[in-house]
Amino acid sequence: MSPDVLVRTAVLDEPEHGLTDDVLSATDVMLWWGHGYHGDVRDDIAAKVQQRVLEGMGLIVLHSAHHAKPFKRLMGTTCNLKWRESGDKEILWVTKPQHPITAGIEDHFTLDHEEMYGEYFDVPEPMETLLISSFTGGEVFRSGMTWTRGAGKIFYFRPGHETFPTYHNANVLRIIGNAVRWCAPAAGGVVPPGCPNPPVGWV
Amino acid sequence: MSPDVLVRTAVLDEPEHGLTDDVLSATDVMLWWGHGYHGDVRDDIAAKVQQRVLEGMGLIVLHSAHHAKPFKRLMGTTCNLKWRESGDKEILWVTKPQHPITAGIEDHFTLDHEEMYGEYFDVPEPMETLLISSFTGGEVFRSGMTWTRGAGKIFYFRPGHETFPTYHNANVLRIIGNAVRWCAPAAGGVVPPGCPNPPVGWV
Amino acid sequence: MSPDVLVRTAVLDEPEHGLTDDVLSATDVMLWWGHGYHGDVRDDIAAKVQQRVLEGMGLIVLHSAHHAKPFKRLMGTTCNLKWRESGDKEILWVTKPQHPITAGIEDHFTLDHEEMYGEYFDVPEPMETLLISSFTGGEVFRSGMTWTRGAGKIFYFRPGHETFPTYHNANVLRIIGNAVRWCAPAAGGVVPPGCPNPPVGWV
Amino acid sequence: MSPDVLVRTAVLDEPEHGLTDDVLSATDVMLWWGHGYHGDVRDDIAAKVQQRVLEGMGLIVLHSAHHAKPFKRLMGTTCNLKWRESGDKEILWVTKPQHPITAGIEDHFTLDHEEMYGEYFDVPEPMETLLISSFTGGEVFRSGMTWTRGAGKIFYFRPGHETFPTYHNANVLRIIGNAVRWCAPAAGGVVPPGCPNPPVGWV
Repeated sequence: MSPDVLVRTAVLDEPEHGLTDDVLSATDVMLWWGHGYHGDVRDDIAAKVQQRVLEGMGLIVLHSAHHAKPFKRLMGTTCNLKWRESGDKEILWVTKPQHPITAGIEDHFTLDHEEMYGEYFDVPEPMETLLISSFTGGEVFRSGMTWTRGAGKIFYFRPGHETFPTYHNANVLRIIGNAVRWCAPAAGGVVPPGCPNPPVGWV
Repeated sequence: MSPDVLVRTAVLDEPEHGLTDDVLSATDVMLWWGHGYHGDVRDDIAAKVQQRVLEGMGLIVLHSAHHAKPFKRLMGTTCNLKWRESGDKEILWVTKPQHPITAGIEDHFTLDHEEMYGEYFDVPEPMETLLISSFTGGEVFRSGMTWTRGAGKIFYFRPGHETFPTYHNANVLRIIGNAVRWCAPAAGGVVPPGCPNPPVGWV
Repeated sequence: MSPDVLVRTAVLDEPEHGLTDDVLSATDVMLWWGHGYHGDVRDDIAAKVQQRVLEGMGLIVLHSAHHAKPFKRLMGTTCNLKWRESGDKEILWVTKPQHPITAGIEDHFTLDHEEMYGEYFDVPEPMETLLISSFTGGEVFRSGMTWTRGAGKIFYFRPGHETFPTYHNANVLRIIGNAVRWCAPAAGGVVPPGCPNPPVGWV
Repeated sequence: MSPDVLVRTAVLDEPEHGLTDDVLSATDVMLWWGHGYHGDVRDDIAAKVQQRVLEGMGLIVLHSAHHAKPFKRLMGTTCNLKWRESGDKEILWVTKPQHPITAGIEDHFTLDHEEMYGEYFDVPEPMETLLISSFTGGEVFRSGMTWTRGAGKIFYFRPGHETFPTYHNANVLRIIGNAVRWCAPAAGGVVPPGCPNPPVGWV
């Protein structure tokens, strides 16, 4: 990243998964990766992460985090998809050129080997579809999508299976870096109130 | 309604709130109204209703059901809003003429007395905004909105405070009737599968 | 189709391309196919078709009609795309199961030979993405998308190159038939007025 | 504005309305205000502005520019609305708190006198609804909406009748300033190509 970005890590085995109230309130953008242990994430921590997104924290959901508890809570759907651990070639096509997240990416790029994810991906219609993948097997997948929930921005980005060097790919890193800036909360944001009961004539 | 619609009722005090597996699987469109006892709805029943919507059941969320558990689970947000029990006059303006849900409704209609609901209403951007209300106090509210989640259609419709004769208003009834037909699942729908792991060459 | 649907044809060489005022006002849903002669369509006729869509006529845009004048006027974008007349195999994946337009379609179906269309497809973000194609060459394309404009519904459907028997495929025909019913205007629709100048106190 | 923003003006009476190719290609964000003379704008200039938006230039459409030719071409709809020059009080409610465009704005603000604009406003469903107004007469209007078209971002903002001091209001100015930054093209954006015909095996 660049000098104005401070990165820290939290892992499942830490107390509160490393996501204490202090950490959450100090985080502008959270990137979430998980695979086999989604069920071990505490429900109350997942609810806190969801609440922080609604208050303005950005959330970048990577690969198998499609089944992460905070993402499923924010989407309201099963987030199910097709999958195959076969090392298919993946071609990612840009469907929204010049978007802040796809800025600097050519019309497509290729990952030689990746886990296949296929449609139907059970998520709500996105605000924007930025990338669509094809795989050697002929499957397709919406690999980059955005949503907003409350005051927070969410970006799902498909690549990143743990057995492949995906996070060393320059295009993948560029997209993640772009997304961090896109998801960051707006300066001067006013936190929306709870459920106010204003009297007559308050306006 | 008309002869092709069969209507039944379920209430909180029934076993499983009247929403047994048999009832849920036989329901095409569910209308949900609730106010002071959302917390008494069982979480497992709320989860079943959510799951049925994802499988294709339509859901019409009325007035104070903005805080109903199944709606909040499907939206992923707080669903908070401003409110005031003052008997304001409410004017509902059509922002999507000729939509199947607003078909037959003029450009606006009026309810002499209603509870005020005001923005910010913390829900995801809707697929369509069909109606916006103004109130005597000067507040506004997106009173008719649609979303899809999984294979299901959702319609939120604001009016319906229990101390006013709102559900005797012809426009309100017309909209609810239109919405029941709009939310009904498509004939011949194929239920999406869980999370399949297809082999190479299956396509 | 079925007995309640009356189908008629209009071609470029007819006076006013067969799209007289009488024909337009009597048409509920228009299907548009064209390829090499988009430039020969009269601008005033294209404007009338656009206007009828805004008043509630459904429009189904087939294959190379992505460059049809009424579609480009309604989208506001170039509607450009990648293409290759190579006879690629096309696999169409359903990304919105149980939608009225994809009802009865399995999770995917295949066309043995088709013209390739690839992203980036320069259209506005759709209301719904229903189908995404992959091609032998590795390209992808959003092959089924919906929009609304004014009181009208629009469905773009990719397949249909003139050198292949695409419009004999049962899935293709089922989707087109479903789309005709989905695009049909709502009964009892109120045509939105021009640009009214209401006086104080009219509400 | 601030030191990193360079502002220039173009008016109808200049040659090419001041919107020469050089000016257009050097403009990141265009703000458009017009009222009685939309018809005098040359169609070829309107088409060039539209094309520049598709290539990434931001467009901020102010008040009566709802009928400006470039906006109507980009929307594809009539952009009609209700209106009344009565000096109604206008209350603008934020429906998307903490959005970059509404950052720093409280839940509502008031303009003592403005021209009334009322729904139905015939534009495509927006990407985001940021502000909704109510007027003394009881009308409502979606006063802040965003869309993307091609690589460009568009923001419509309602206030600004020429007989009132609206553009001296601090909230109005804050929103316009925020919008200029939100609409600016992404650095490193790749301009989408025309309609390429790639050969087999190019991927």
